[in-house]
Amino acid sequence: MNMNHTLRYVDDHTKGLVSDLQVLIRQPSVSAKNEGLEKCAKLVCNIMKKSGIKSELLRLKKGVPPLVFGEVKSKQNPNKTLLFYNHYDVQPVEPFELWDDKPFSGKIKGNKIFGRGSSDDKGELITRIKAVESYLRTNGDVPCNVKFVVEGEEEIGSEHVELYLKKYRKKFACDAVIWEFGYVDSKNRPIISLGMKGLLYVELSKKESTRDLHSSLAVIIKNPAWRLLEAVKSLRNADGKILIKDWYKEVQSLTKKELQLIESEPFDEIGMKKEYGVKNFVANKKGKAAKQALVAEPTCNIAGFVSGYTEQGAKTVLPGSAFVKIDFRLVPNMDPKKQLARLRSHLKSKGFGDLKMTVYHGEAASKTNISDPFVSQVQESANEIYGKSILSVSSAGTGPMYAFAQVLKSPCVSIGCTHVYARIHSPNEFARLDLIKKTTKCMCRILEKFAKD
Amino acid sequence: MNMNHTLRYVDDHTKGLVSDLQVLIRQPSVSAKNEGLEKCAKLVCNIMKKSGIKSELLRLKKGVPPLVFGEVKSKQNPNKTLLFYNHYDVQPVEPFELWDDKPFSGKIKGNKIFGRGSSDDKGELITRIKAVESYLRTNGDVPCNVKFVVEGEEEIGSEHVELYLKKYRKKFACDAVIWEFGYVDSKNRPIISLGMKGLLYVELSKKESTRDLHSSLAVIIKNPAWRLLEAVKSLRNADGKILIKDWYKEVQSLTKKELQLIESEPFDEIGMKKEYGVKNFVANKKGKAAKQALVAEPTCNIAGFVSGYTEQGAKTVLPGSAFVKIDFRLVPNMDPKKQLARLRSHLKSKGFGDLKMTVYHGEAASKTNISDPFVSQVQESANEIYGKSILSVSSAGTGPMYAFAQVLKSPCVSIGCTHVYARIHSPNEFARLDLIKKTTKCMCRILEKFAKD
Repeated sequence: MNMNHTLRYVDDHTKGLVSDLQVLIRQPSVSAKNEGLEKCAKLVCNIMKKSGIKSELLRLKKGVPPLVFGEVKSKQNPNKTLLFYNHYDVQPVEPFELWDDKPFSGKIKGNKIFGRGSSDDKGELITRIKAVESYLRTNGDVPCNVKFVVEGEEEIGSEHVELYLKKYRKKFACDAVIWEFGYVDSKNRPIISLGMKGLLYVELSKKESTRDLHSSLAVIIKNPAWRLLEAVKSLRNADGKILIKDWYKEVQSLTKKELQLIESEPFDEIGMKKEYGVKNFVANKKGKAAKQALVAEPTCNIAGFVSGYTEQGAKTVLPGSAFVKIDFRLVPNMDPKKQLARLRSHLKSKGFGDLKMTVYHGEAASKTNISDPFVSQVQESANEIYGKSILSVSSAGTGPMYAFAQVLKSPCVSIGCTHVYARIHSPNEFARLDLIKKTTKCMCRILEKFAKD
Repeated sequence: MNMNHTLRYVDDHTKGLVSDLQVLIRQPSVSAKNEGLEKCAKLVCNIMKKSGIKSELLRLKKGVPPLVFGEVKSKQNPNKTLLFYNHYDVQPVEPFELWDDKPFSGKIKGNKIFGRGSSDDKGELITRIKAVESYLRTNGDVPCNVKFVVEGEEEIGSEHVELYLKKYRKKFACDAVIWEFGYVDSKNRPIISLGMKGLLYVELSKKESTRDLHSSLAVIIKNPAWRLLEAVKSLRNADGKILIKDWYKEVQSLTKKELQLIESEPFDEIGMKKEYGVKNFVANKKGKAAKQALVAEPTCNIAGFVSGYTEQGAKTVLPGSAFVKIDFRLVPNMDPKKQLARLRSHLKSKGFGDLKMTVYHGEAASKTNISDPFVSQVQESANEIYGKSILSVSSAGTGPMYAFAQVLKSPCVSIGCTHVYARIHSPNEFARLDLIKKTTKCMCRILEKFAKD
């Protein structure tokens, strides 16, 4: 295998990489709205085929988005398999009016490509596909077997990925997993993350009357916003501590090794505050405390609240109904089902048993062991391509890593091209072209090192 | 004056009345959005002229909607003047999707005419205009002088009506005022109301970061919805009692006469609960307590709350900002300015001094003396036309009655054609054509009785 040729191929074929990424961005695939998923899955399949990867759409049952499976068998090393996990669905684009260009434009400005999914996760996916393509085109082979699992429900909680994993357990068998994304910090250091937080996402709603009424009636007819507000207020205190009984019961302390790793991690507090326009963090957390919170603290977040008149000016209405969306981030050892039961019992005991609850997500957190050899293979690869890297105990975000670790019994490591301020989930999401190229090269290196060791 | 001819004219000219009302409904005039106000004022002016009423647009200053002034001088009785106060602006139409027809359709289905403003207040206005037209066409005169004051900011708190009243004090001079609306209950009894509650309407908002962020950051970046929720929660308890210091300080007890009147008022508790789809009233109020609350209890109502992702499904965002709209209904003797100062000081003392506050409205409550002769003139007229009527101490709603009572030194009495379930301020607002006709006749009778006594 000639590594130099492979890396040069990446440099020489940036144009194709970018145009394939544009094709993916321009196909909306918002899982929260079930918009364009089938079409996007087929596009991914086609791009894989064009790159020399055998690909197919796998299906679970009607109504569930298909999963794209890709595979290349290695002639020289058929006994080792690396699996790339990614997703083709994206977050909703709202608030629409805050985008400078159309949300699915794929527009390039200088070193940046814009659009929903440009980083999360279509940009990441393209680096994996193009790494394999580069190997195949320059060597006619890959250093080990490669598999792709690209799902369509990551942004709404990967509800069916575990069922897919179980159904296709043999097909997906592998020795290690490269996770769907990885951050690159403001000093261009890739952050190699070994874990993901879990997530419990619920919607609480209350209907008090058949419609919004004249607010003079508020003196006798109940306001659902008040009820909801009181229910939500009972969930946590002003400093973010969750007040639900036994919420933290199974949370484990960080190990000494983990604490050391967190301490050694850089943290761009000033840059972060500037980027987000904030002065102080929650409960005045600083430095080490803020870093530890990101890695190891559960949250209770209001993701959305709406009731009554929400346009400009004044309208004297008594809302007929109200709803709130809440996401709870979970840490390792917290069981989403158990936490949900605790939430239900909290609401009931506080007198809010009448609120309607819709459960959108329930995912457990996961952590890969720092001592796993795959961790150092990834880190060495990153250091060679970027000149530096950061090892992190866990991302603050969520993904179905727990399901992968449990079903495939493989270490999962997160590394990628997503700049920390790439505005994923926000208007004007972008990806940096230099980071996409570097990450593609880094994936080549990882394949090589993983195959050799 | 031949009263029978006049009332027959009303019956014979219903078609013209309805088509003029449709013209008014079809012209959007949403004051909260400054939409179509000038156009609507001109339409009102033209309809008045067509009916034989001298009319003109009065202006205060740039940016303030014009006020339509109309006048007919009586040849036989030039020393007594009745003033009709109405408004040509309407509430916003949102939520748009809940309308069966277009919000400004003016569509007729059986005995009902639909559209924003069909009852509140274009339907009411047309009854006053057509009563005067009926007199003029059948008698060539009116029984006393008639004046019209039709403003364009009632639905956003009548900010400038007091200035208009002061500027045109002489022009508007009168001996009594017929208020802009009156309810008709489910047994077709007009409710003659002698008072209006006051209103303080504010918007509180909080911005924590420059945009909505990925909710994994909620562990360190503050959520503005939590702050707002805590501030709002501090304003009242679950039973509706307002917790702001000295909020009730100047509130006066109801007099014995008022309590008797309230007790004797019918109250369609079952019908109301059915219409609005509610089981229990606030704090389990029933019968007399509910009636007293409507007349004499201040409220703190969430008219709107919005933050973060409000569409379908799940989106894991940390909102960048949040806002809440709150209306406080005031009762007689509460000074909106004083109450606003109390609200500000409450928020400051509770640590919410950083929230941004926008004040939309501030209006005091008002009550006309039950013993004023004008009250019985109106009641006798109503009894003659409807066969029955209900006298009420005060409406639960708000209007600038205080300003009229103070500046024009005249008794104000509320009577009209608005059915209690006419969905004013809500989707599918309508007016009943039979009530519009009856109220037009009732206005004729009022003019006659008032002129004679």
